[in-house]
Amino acid sequence: MAKKLTVGIIGAGRIGKLHAENICYNIPEVKIKTISDIRIDAIKEWATGLGIENVVKDYHEILNDPEIDAVFVCSSTDTHAQITIEAAEAGKDIFCEKPIDLDLDRIKKVLEEVEKAGVKLQVGFNRRFDHNFKKARDLVKEGKIGEPHIIKITSRDPEPPSIDYVKVSGGLFLDMTIHDFDMARYLSGSEVTEVYVNGAVLVDEEIGKAGDIDTAVITLKFANGAIGVIDNSRKAVYGYDQRVEVFGSKGQITVYNDKPTSVEVSTEETVSTDKPKYFFLERYTDSFITEVKDFVKAVIEDKEVPVSGIDGLKSVEIGLAAKKSLETNQPVKLDN
Amino acid sequence: MAKKLTVGIIGAGRIGKLHAENICYNIPEVKIKTISDIRIDAIKEWATGLGIENVVKDYHEILNDPEIDAVFVCSSTDTHAQITIEAAEAGKDIFCEKPIDLDLDRIKKVLEEVEKAGVKLQVGFNRRFDHNFKKARDLVKEGKIGEPHIIKITSRDPEPPSIDYVKVSGGLFLDMTIHDFDMARYLSGSEVTEVYVNGAVLVDEEIGKAGDIDTAVITLKFANGAIGVIDNSRKAVYGYDQRVEVFGSKGQITVYNDKPTSVEVSTEETVSTDKPKYFFLERYTDSFITEVKDFVKAVIEDKEVPVSGIDGLKSVEIGLAAKKSLETNQPVKLDN
Amino acid sequence: MAKKLTVGIIGAGRIGKLHAENICYNIPEVKIKTISDIRIDAIKEWATGLGIENVVKDYHEILNDPEIDAVFVCSSTDTHAQITIEAAEAGKDIFCEKPIDLDLDRIKKVLEEVEKAGVKLQVGFNRRFDHNFKKARDLVKEGKIGEPHIIKITSRDPEPPSIDYVKVSGGLFLDMTIHDFDMARYLSGSEVTEVYVNGAVLVDEEIGKAGDIDTAVITLKFANGAIGVIDNSRKAVYGYDQRVEVFGSKGQITVYNDKPTSVEVSTEETVSTDKPKYFFLERYTDSFITEVKDFVKAVIEDKEVPVSGIDGLKSVEIGLAAKKSLETNQPVKLDN
Amino acid sequence: MAKKLTVGIIGAGRIGKLHAENICYNIPEVKIKTISDIRIDAIKEWATGLGIENVVKDYHEILNDPEIDAVFVCSSTDTHAQITIEAAEAGKDIFCEKPIDLDLDRIKKVLEEVEKAGVKLQVGFNRRFDHNFKKARDLVKEGKIGEPHIIKITSRDPEPPSIDYVKVSGGLFLDMTIHDFDMARYLSGSEVTEVYVNGAVLVDEEIGKAGDIDTAVITLKFANGAIGVIDNSRKAVYGYDQRVEVFGSKGQITVYNDKPTSVEVSTEETVSTDKPKYFFLERYTDSFITEVKDFVKAVIEDKEVPVSGIDGLKSVEIGLAAKKSLETNQPVKLDN
Repeated sequence: MAKKLTVGIIGAGRIGKLHAENICYNIPEVKIKTISDIRIDAIKEWATGLGIENVVKDYHEILNDPEIDAVFVCSSTDTHAQITIEAAEAGKDIFCEKPIDLDLDRIKKVLEEVEKAGVKLQVGFNRRFDHNFKKARDLVKEGKIGEPHIIKITSRDPEPPSIDYVKVSGGLFLDMTIHDFDMARYLSGSEVTEVYVNGAVLVDEEIGKAGDIDTAVITLKFANGAIGVIDNSRKAVYGYDQRVEVFGSKGQITVYNDKPTSVEVSTEETVSTDKPKYFFLERYTDSFITEVKDFVKAVIEDKEVPVSGIDGLKSVEIGLAAKKSLETNQPVKLDN
Repeated sequence: MAKKLTVGIIGAGRIGKLHAENICYNIPEVKIKTISDIRIDAIKEWATGLGIENVVKDYHEILNDPEIDAVFVCSSTDTHAQITIEAAEAGKDIFCEKPIDLDLDRIKKVLEEVEKAGVKLQVGFNRRFDHNFKKARDLVKEGKIGEPHIIKITSRDPEPPSIDYVKVSGGLFLDMTIHDFDMARYLSGSEVTEVYVNGAVLVDEEIGKAGDIDTAVITLKFANGAIGVIDNSRKAVYGYDQRVEVFGSKGQITVYNDKPTSVEVSTEETVSTDKPKYFFLERYTDSFITEVKDFVKAVIEDKEVPVSGIDGLKSVEIGLAAKKSLETNQPVKLDN
Repeated sequence: MAKKLTVGIIGAGRIGKLHAENICYNIPEVKIKTISDIRIDAIKEWATGLGIENVVKDYHEILNDPEIDAVFVCSSTDTHAQITIEAAEAGKDIFCEKPIDLDLDRIKKVLEEVEKAGVKLQVGFNRRFDHNFKKARDLVKEGKIGEPHIIKITSRDPEPPSIDYVKVSGGLFLDMTIHDFDMARYLSGSEVTEVYVNGAVLVDEEIGKAGDIDTAVITLKFANGAIGVIDNSRKAVYGYDQRVEVFGSKGQITVYNDKPTSVEVSTEETVSTDKPKYFFLERYTDSFITEVKDFVKAVIEDKEVPVSGIDGLKSVEIGLAAKKSLETNQPVKLDN
Repeated sequence: MAKKLTVGIIGAGRIGKLHAENICYNIPEVKIKTISDIRIDAIKEWATGLGIENVVKDYHEILNDPEIDAVFVCSSTDTHAQITIEAAEAGKDIFCEKPIDLDLDRIKKVLEEVEKAGVKLQVGFNRRFDHNFKKARDLVKEGKIGEPHIIKITSRDPEPPSIDYVKVSGGLFLDMTIHDFDMARYLSGSEVTEVYVNGAVLVDEEIGKAGDIDTAVITLKFANGAIGVIDNSRKAVYGYDQRVEVFGSKGQITVYNDKPTSVEVSTEETVSTDKPKYFFLERYTDSFITEVKDFVKAVIEDKEVPVSGIDGLKSVEIGLAAKKSLETNQPVKLDN
């Protein structure tokens, strides 16, 4: 197949590598011309093995390359805003990992520059592309369960990140729950108007000492009258727990966990099945491919991207409101 | 089997009749000597058919009968406190339907009189005796899932009560959620210290006009650090939705709905199973029998009843705090 | 409720006692006037406790009592035919436990006498009254899955009976599979025309030494063209395994096992649920009550009984054909 | 990654194309140098798009190319034996689609030539590499359920092939059940010693007119004493039904169908989930990749292939015995 889109990838950490490999193995219409990373030596062999022509240290080489149509911003969070603005100015369409930034004004600035430049910007909320959640959203949209009344999201990691990571993560809400805030908006089709948080340190005291929490129940009010609730834990010993429920006037949609196999074992002791898929790389494998395919399609066909900069902004707004609610033990309203 | 306990039933509405029939058909060691109801004509035939000797209008005939060991208070809620106090003074052991009263001071007065009289008082939180929830509680107690971190209760009725009933019900929290407050305490093994409510009128505007809500997400803090969340709706079109989850440091317990059959049908359109059992009479059939058996056992063997007057008090306290939270949109602390 | 039917129970072994208790506790329109058992001393206290007036040694006292409308034949299998014939001659309606006899000619003789006497005869194939299997049958009848093509029955006991019992049981097919043969006819709505058996001794060599097998896969051809398969084992360590599948031109019906609770436990090791209900008393509790209720209804309303003498005959015919197939390792045709 | 193995693909029909695409997208250590197909014009564009250098008409160009290490025989069944023998003579390692041939003598001849040439031969029983069945097999091997007693395989297609295909397919047993015969051997870890078939034409009379059947229940005896049963239908309207059960002395393993999503929808009518994945391309996607990966690994590391020529032979032997059983309505013994 003739390659139809030439892209550059900025940042080859875990997520940058994942996108690069997904593109090489699964998206034949895209050619990765160049990949940049400040630790160029660490990625050269890997990149060459994938058949990527250029491996560079400075991402400006990507931005300045007129052959490159679009860029993937996969560098560290604190550089997303700056690089996205520069990429917009360079006229590239942009796929930016979440979050765009942790500061609302900086995000707004990014969105302005993107709009001014007339380029496309998609934010990496991959879970919207998960086969299960997408079906749930489609059913809600079709009216299968009538008006949504209660949206419940369970999102628990199999184990906490390192304390070093916790310290720079931006906190549970902006690091982990941000995906759930986006999912809440996606499933409900409505904006969050108020947040209230019950948070606790129950998994690891060190997380508390680092100024963060590891367990939370977050309730949301939506503009359409629905109520939402997200529950998070940094440690579900049985694996990555990712479920949602949308309850409405005409029924309920439940999304259960995906499991590695459909095998059930009955013994004298018990009847048992697999634990959920271990973590996000296993659970959301396909969604990472689909989000890029859909971005590529939107660019090639010049259509709207499926996750916008506004979506990137909103989830951070809710995350910051959640932080404030935790600090004050009060419900916090959002301006919409 | 020789009858070992002679009882009287005060009030033969839906729940009084249920207890009477359960005793006659399933609890051979109990003899119902007398049943009282102000609408005596309406119940006479039914009671005679059951083999109950005496059907009377005035419950004092029961309280004054020295042959009667214990009474079941199944009259309307506003009479529970008064009758329970009189029964205690008459030296009867008491099974009182929930709630004891909607006023905290009156409940405390009841508990004082019961204690003074040295009789037993069990409150009708039947769900604690449900085979599913009891197993969940037992597993928590055994430490199967370690320390509880998050307790989630889904409790939704298949259809709202009449507006006339809504008006006198005491409101969603004291009428319906009161069972869930008790379940939260039961499953967590800890006291609720704070409540916050997101409530809405989404099912029927008339419920709103009657001063009540029909949809709610209620978050709880527990003394042991755990967080709880209850979600309620007055109308789940697919039937009575009664599920719980207890998530802890070493795992999770999930209680799914009971269904009428285990039949699954696969067709060209879909794979489908039964809806949940329709409502509480179908879903909690056995629990109503077990709670009475356990009460009878406690009386005969002179042991502690499994649901105490304090349990009756606590759930009303939480219900009133929830009401206040809804009115103020603030978290409300409970004195413990 | 005025008792509408007066019955006698002949034989107070396990199944006779079960029917007696079910009637006393659950079927108010029936009065058990007399119960007979050759071991009269062993049952007297139990029968008196249930409120049964007469406990006698000789079942003829029941047959000769003009007040008794119907009898339950719950004695040992070798006496079923004789007692049933005498009961028919005495003009009693009859509920006879399965099998009527192990000899086809004797069964036919019984059916003739019953017809001559014009009384009702119901055979105790209780599983037809199980909530799950009844729903499956109803769905087949309604045409929900079109024409039945393949009927699969899994029927495995949790543990083998004693070797002493095995020796007098009539063999696996007439003792255990007989229920499955009846279920196959019930679910398919068609007669069995040919049987082929794969049998083995895999559970306990002693069973083999006693001349029986403990494991079998039995295939059936039906008059309507469908194919059936039954698999049996005397020992499923995880409990009583009772499932069926009916596959047809428009879909499939699957009946899963019933379990004691709906509780699921997720831990670091696995996700586990209850084992199936332990054995037939737990699994088929309600079906034993329903079969008697339906018999009583048929007698009171003078309607056809739901399981006929012909049903009793057919299942023995298939069982004997299965025996022959096992001996000859050949498919065996049935005369219909 | 440096390509470690150079292969040629012979035959670019559905399965040849599938292997080619799987290799290009998922197995970086393999280079497809040449692909051959008699309809060369029909595949040229597709092959070029995949980056395959040579597209040829005559497979001898592949066999004669010294750079090519291994070949995939994906041509029509009637050519498998001839090509495999020639490939062995040319010293190529061989991955041959199932069946090797429909004639036992020809298969034996192939195996002799392969052995003489000292090359590897893997047969395309992809289902052994399915994540679910592989786990089931591993658990059996580990002794998790003790000694296997009963093996049950359900294998039903969503719709029958064309009548033209039926006519040349070799019949249900050699076309469709052959996979199940292999699965039975795989799961039991034992050889089949006897086969008995109940077959019928229930789906489409035209299939019967073409000399084939569309519905079958096949029972098997195994050398280790276990009993097996396979049920087949050419038309399960709810989708591809692929399940197994292995029942043993210490428990049971059940493999349920895979479904596209984990979504459940509860409405006023029913509770419903997805139908099984539609057909083998959806259901066994990963197994087709894994079987090739494992073949490649065996070749590169010079180890035994996971599915041998003997496995290819045995399944045809059982298939032919099944045919004979159907014709004679007798159990048929296999020589082992």
